[in-house]
Amino acid sequence: MRTNLIPDLDLAEHLFNMLRLRTSDGVGITREAYGPGERTAHAIVAAEAEALGLDVEADPAGNLLITMPGTNPALPRVVLGSHLDSVPQGGNYDGAAGVLAGLAAVSGMRRVGFRPTRDITVIAIRAEEGGAWFPTSFPGSRAALGTLPPAALDTKRLDSGRTLAEHMAEEGFFPEEVRAGKCLLPPASVAAYVELHIEQGPVLDTEEIPVGVVTGIPGSRRLRAARVLGEYNHSGATPRRYRRDAAIALAELATRLDDRWAELDAAGHSLVCTFCVLATTAEAGFTKIPGEAWFQLDVRSVSPASVDAIYDALHGLVPRIEARRGVRFELGAEVLSPPTPMAAEVRAGLARAATALGVPFREMASGGGHDAVAFAQAGVPAGMLFVRNQHGSHNPHEAMRLEDFAAATTVLTRWAAEMAK
Amino acid sequence: MRTNLIPDLDLAEHLFNMLRLRTSDGVGITREAYGPGERTAHAIVAAEAEALGLDVEADPAGNLLITMPGTNPALPRVVLGSHLDSVPQGGNYDGAAGVLAGLAAVSGMRRVGFRPTRDITVIAIRAEEGGAWFPTSFPGSRAALGTLPPAALDTKRLDSGRTLAEHMAEEGFFPEEVRAGKCLLPPASVAAYVELHIEQGPVLDTEEIPVGVVTGIPGSRRLRAARVLGEYNHSGATPRRYRRDAAIALAELATRLDDRWAELDAAGHSLVCTFCVLATTAEAGFTKIPGEAWFQLDVRSVSPASVDAIYDALHGLVPRIEARRGVRFELGAEVLSPPTPMAAEVRAGLARAATALGVPFREMASGGGHDAVAFAQAGVPAGMLFVRNQHGSHNPHEAMRLEDFAAATTVLTRWAAEMAK
Repeated sequence: MRTNLIPDLDLAEHLFNMLRLRTSDGVGITREAYGPGERTAHAIVAAEAEALGLDVEADPAGNLLITMPGTNPALPRVVLGSHLDSVPQGGNYDGAAGVLAGLAAVSGMRRVGFRPTRDITVIAIRAEEGGAWFPTSFPGSRAALGTLPPAALDTKRLDSGRTLAEHMAEEGFFPEEVRAGKCLLPPASVAAYVELHIEQGPVLDTEEIPVGVVTGIPGSRRLRAARVLGEYNHSGATPRRYRRDAAIALAELATRLDDRWAELDAAGHSLVCTFCVLATTAEAGFTKIPGEAWFQLDVRSVSPASVDAIYDALHGLVPRIEARRGVRFELGAEVLSPPTPMAAEVRAGLARAATALGVPFREMASGGGHDAVAFAQAGVPAGMLFVRNQHGSHNPHEAMRLEDFAAATTVLTRWAAEMAK
Repeated sequence: MRTNLIPDLDLAEHLFNMLRLRTSDGVGITREAYGPGERTAHAIVAAEAEALGLDVEADPAGNLLITMPGTNPALPRVVLGSHLDSVPQGGNYDGAAGVLAGLAAVSGMRRVGFRPTRDITVIAIRAEEGGAWFPTSFPGSRAALGTLPPAALDTKRLDSGRTLAEHMAEEGFFPEEVRAGKCLLPPASVAAYVELHIEQGPVLDTEEIPVGVVTGIPGSRRLRAARVLGEYNHSGATPRRYRRDAAIALAELATRLDDRWAELDAAGHSLVCTFCVLATTAEAGFTKIPGEAWFQLDVRSVSPASVDAIYDALHGLVPRIEARRGVRFELGAEVLSPPTPMAAEVRAGLARAATALGVPFREMASGGGHDAVAFAQAGVPAGMLFVRNQHGSHNPHEAMRLEDFAAATTVLTRWAAEMAK
């Protein structure tokens, strides 16, 4: 491996600036999935890739594939990338960092005349921010791989009410080809996928480590709209023993479940347990005992056993609280998602590259979901590199130091060159 | 005391039916304070009183005074009554029961030729439902007594945005006279006031006792808009030790404070402690750790020491939870209202009357506030009789059995006759 294989960081910095300038919304940046912001971001990246003399094509779903051809294009290719959409009023780095890292890697390779055996493709993926736009997981990357279930095309964008297929067609792409499973990256054609992404959490920043090698994406068990039903009564005229207070029952459930999480945390379980919503309803107010409350519960771990330990506690607590407080819980449907481990050989390769370069890193689980899940679930060996960042993500204060991006992108470049050589 | 002094229950039943018919809103009944519903109720009651040949007059605030003259009108009079307004979509008995009980009492006295020494006045009070109409306590009864602070006339009705003075004038009354303190019931002219009212709580119904003799109206310490401030973070990407979760901090506060209430309750404190609102804010949702929550806290007791015991616990818990969970509580202003004991001699008189009549009763604190507070605070010996009722109050399902109303009204009639004789 040549030691002077360094990524084109000037290119990445220039593109970060262009993206920020052109997709600013006055507060943060907004790149609507299959809307003007994402369209602008794709145009900026495509133009730069063409200027670099790389092969640029869009697949039927509008994912952008930028390829540096290898000497043996029959071999499965190496894919680097991430998404270019963002949440509304989000930050500039969530998603974009992975695309620009890929471009910086291939540009760096070309600059020194490195010629891989395999094709190296940088992919700019569509519509990853499912919580913000389409209520379906990873439609862009799954369409890229030909694994998107046709029904996903009929889900509606949360703000516009129009379907994914309609939005795709409006942007000039081909939803009916996607529906038929046509794609440019059938899983067997991909040797490995690596996604560089900001961490979105505080671990690397607090521990003063620039890079994370991701072990896996946690699975989750979620309650999306659980209710507690009691009885509205006069808060002055109803003594303790006659109450059926939904709010205090929910508070007790949350507190006791958090106690259980603290025990599991102390015992070394890698697990998060969050009451994302915990609330009385609009009917609540002074002089009334709350007769109803609701909550959203998000439990995640790379270990299904850890997630199940929380739900075991939940299912033990509910009947006891119901009996003692005269309320009824309606937990509703559980939404399950299994954990997705990253491929051992990709993890090992990324760790080797970081070690060889002297870049400090730690292994860590991801917090959120990423397009790498779609690749892994399609059977593609997949991995992720996290970059230390500040102020979380999905907000305009999201930050990342370019020196940390440089460290992670150098690791990515070395790994890709090794993989494709 | 003549034993055949029984109230005119046919009259009361007829008036309950008229009120229900004429102030129904299709769901429950609505009698807006200084609006059409209350106006209709006053007209029904005034017409019936005139038909009975009683003296009927309105004071400058529009309170209706119906008087059976005594043989010595120079003596302070006995006053019976309650309010005729209701909450929107409320029940037929909350307030009206006390006015109709007073009318049934004097009609019953006239029917048997009973002639009191003191005047007996039945008062139909305006605008008691402060939470529904004007955000000021007991404007009607305080105006009746000449104790309403002038500034209360400038408070605005919550739905219309127009002031109490404007609404009063629109109904044909004289807010400027009220402002000047003119009234028909200066406190020294009232020997005693008794208000019959539905209980609004489950105690009498559960204990199968028809009548309550009220010991006092609790004082309260309230937090109207307390906040918990933490930090929004990604619920997947933020490990336990990096969290500043406002919702779980609030849940813990509520649970621990409820534990403290349970201890005080078991130790015999007569006290209620309610988180009327306990909620994350509109910003909360999936994949976010709640960065903010808010609550309303309503603590009431006839004993200030019991209320203070809860606040002592609150003020002990807050800094501990802040330190452990990295959040900040902003409790905001406390709204204090002192307890109002009922007059010992009135309580004793009501208990004597019930005992003599063989009507089962228990002594009990009131849950909510009532016009009797305004009389007691003006120095008038005041008491209350509660009538067993079902399904609470301030809702269309509020119910009361006429046999229980009859029992309580018979006690009221006996007490009034004894007092005025």
